[in-house]
Amino acid sequence: MEYAIGIDLGSTNFRVGVVSSDGVLHEKYMEEVGANRDAEDIAHFLFLHIKRLLEAWPDVIGVGIGIPGIVNKEKGIVHQAPHYPKWHDVKFKELLNEQFNVPVIIDNDANMIALGEGMLGAAKDLDNFLMITLGTGVGGGLFLNGKILHGDTGFAGEIGHMIVEFDGPPCNCGGRGCWEMYVSATGLKHMVEISDEPHKDKFLKSINDDYHKVTPALLFDHARDGDIFASVIWKKFGTYLGVGIASLVNTFGVFNIVIGGGVSKAWDYFIKPAENELKKRTYKHTGNLVKLHPAVLEHDAGVFGSARAVLQPECD
Amino acid sequence: MEYAIGIDLGSTNFRVGVVSSDGVLHEKYMEEVGANRDAEDIAHFLFLHIKRLLEAWPDVIGVGIGIPGIVNKEKGIVHQAPHYPKWHDVKFKELLNEQFNVPVIIDNDANMIALGEGMLGAAKDLDNFLMITLGTGVGGGLFLNGKILHGDTGFAGEIGHMIVEFDGPPCNCGGRGCWEMYVSATGLKHMVEISDEPHKDKFLKSINDDYHKVTPALLFDHARDGDIFASVIWKKFGTYLGVGIASLVNTFGVFNIVIGGGVSKAWDYFIKPAENELKKRTYKHTGNLVKLHPAVLEHDAGVFGSARAVLQPECD
Repeated sequence: MEYAIGIDLGSTNFRVGVVSSDGVLHEKYMEEVGANRDAEDIAHFLFLHIKRLLEAWPDVIGVGIGIPGIVNKEKGIVHQAPHYPKWHDVKFKELLNEQFNVPVIIDNDANMIALGEGMLGAAKDLDNFLMITLGTGVGGGLFLNGKILHGDTGFAGEIGHMIVEFDGPPCNCGGRGCWEMYVSATGLKHMVEISDEPHKDKFLKSINDDYHKVTPALLFDHARDGDIFASVIWKKFGTYLGVGIASLVNTFGVFNIVIGGGVSKAWDYFIKPAENELKKRTYKHTGNLVKLHPAVLEHDAGVFGSARAVLQPECD
Repeated sequence: MEYAIGIDLGSTNFRVGVVSSDGVLHEKYMEEVGANRDAEDIAHFLFLHIKRLLEAWPDVIGVGIGIPGIVNKEKGIVHQAPHYPKWHDVKFKELLNEQFNVPVIIDNDANMIALGEGMLGAAKDLDNFLMITLGTGVGGGLFLNGKILHGDTGFAGEIGHMIVEFDGPPCNCGGRGCWEMYVSATGLKHMVEISDEPHKDKFLKSINDDYHKVTPALLFDHARDGDIFASVIWKKFGTYLGVGIASLVNTFGVFNIVIGGGVSKAWDYFIKPAENELKKRTYKHTGNLVKLHPAVLEHDAGVFGSARAVLQPECD
């Protein structure tokens, strides 16, 4: 049996576990990271945790770390990380690698989540699937022919920046009408702001006209409580989700799509419109083959996947 | 030295050649195919040519055939082919394979063109590139980690059906606002039809108000002769080309894009707007890394690529 440490470095939380090659999670815990920290600072924080775990688990053969940002896995560089704005082309792997006798692998967090769902979750035993994480933004992990696609420099999977509306709202990537401006927390907020739906007044009253209060969780609660406006927004969310998935299906010819991330909790409110739109936007034969799977491993997916990058390096 | 027969079955023309593993094209010719023929009919037509070439070139180790349609390479099935409307889930490989002592490989024509450009053309020695063919429709060949991506059933590469305009014009796939409705011969015609550009009147006069006359070649000639309206249409074409390429770059993280197909002859009239739009629609760092290459092998790309699928099977 082989063991690996899997780490999911989030924007606010850090999750770590020891995973064995039979897919068992032996030890797992979570800590708050704190925002906007230097790379050296985070590296030292990780160093202390890894050191302790390596002492407790001497059979560990390596460490995998999922990082929310644009990661060049091969070179071990984090080009940028939206939640760590100070990081620019940081040689993150170097900061850690020298301190241990086992190798360290870093990769984009959505790639690690895809590896996790493919190991034990919604995409178990599939050779081809696309992982979509719906959160503050949109993340993508593209698992093709049994392996994560990285592209030329690790930039692959920025699927939130597919353009779905030529003249849509400006996006922080510099473009307009990116998919992320609809199917993320950012997108939900924007769709609420620009909506002229008649039931919006009642909704706005309930939040004291404070748009800052608009979160996926609030819209989920309102929809569940029967608020019509919130349901309309989730329906629009689902429609745009279907449009983007249609683009992905037509491009990759991959029919299994796994959807995770915090925003996907509202599954019941957006999945039907997504499926309907997807069918409208693909050849009939194709649309009928597509399956949208909810992710199942939740917060453990990144830990499992990061460990898998070590245990099954041919997959990453 | 190994030899293979490469065949490019087009909508109206058929091209065939014998290629050796050092990349030399030994014999090549072209014939008209005639439209709307049965699969059995075309298979017999190909059989006669292949038989003759196999007798003349006894060292040939296999036959590769590029077919304009949705091809399941593994199963040897052509699911559909827009220019051969009678073909539905045709077991095309079976129709040929049994008649020869050497294996036959069939694949989508854009995949074969990509293999050709990667062997000897614009993408020589690249491990990652995307081939875009701009013709009646839009074709795509996705070469990733040294291999064509086929997806689950050979459907990968239908990039003309990425959605770039949520509420755009209806497309024959059943959707709306597909990329193909802008950056193809079909798209050019549609953009001319809906344009309200002031110089349109003069242009229309020159074609006697007959929209049937609007072809890429006509728009190319008009632009070259200084017609302002034609230039505006090519600029719009380029802008949409840039939008779709941005979606592809953000998704695949691949920076080398090869553009071919008949419509790409108007390169000088659309490439600057395409590059400008692409840079607007990607992260600055990324946009600067992208290179748009004109295809160089023209009509030979499919012949070379189909032969390469035989000579270097690990690439297809």
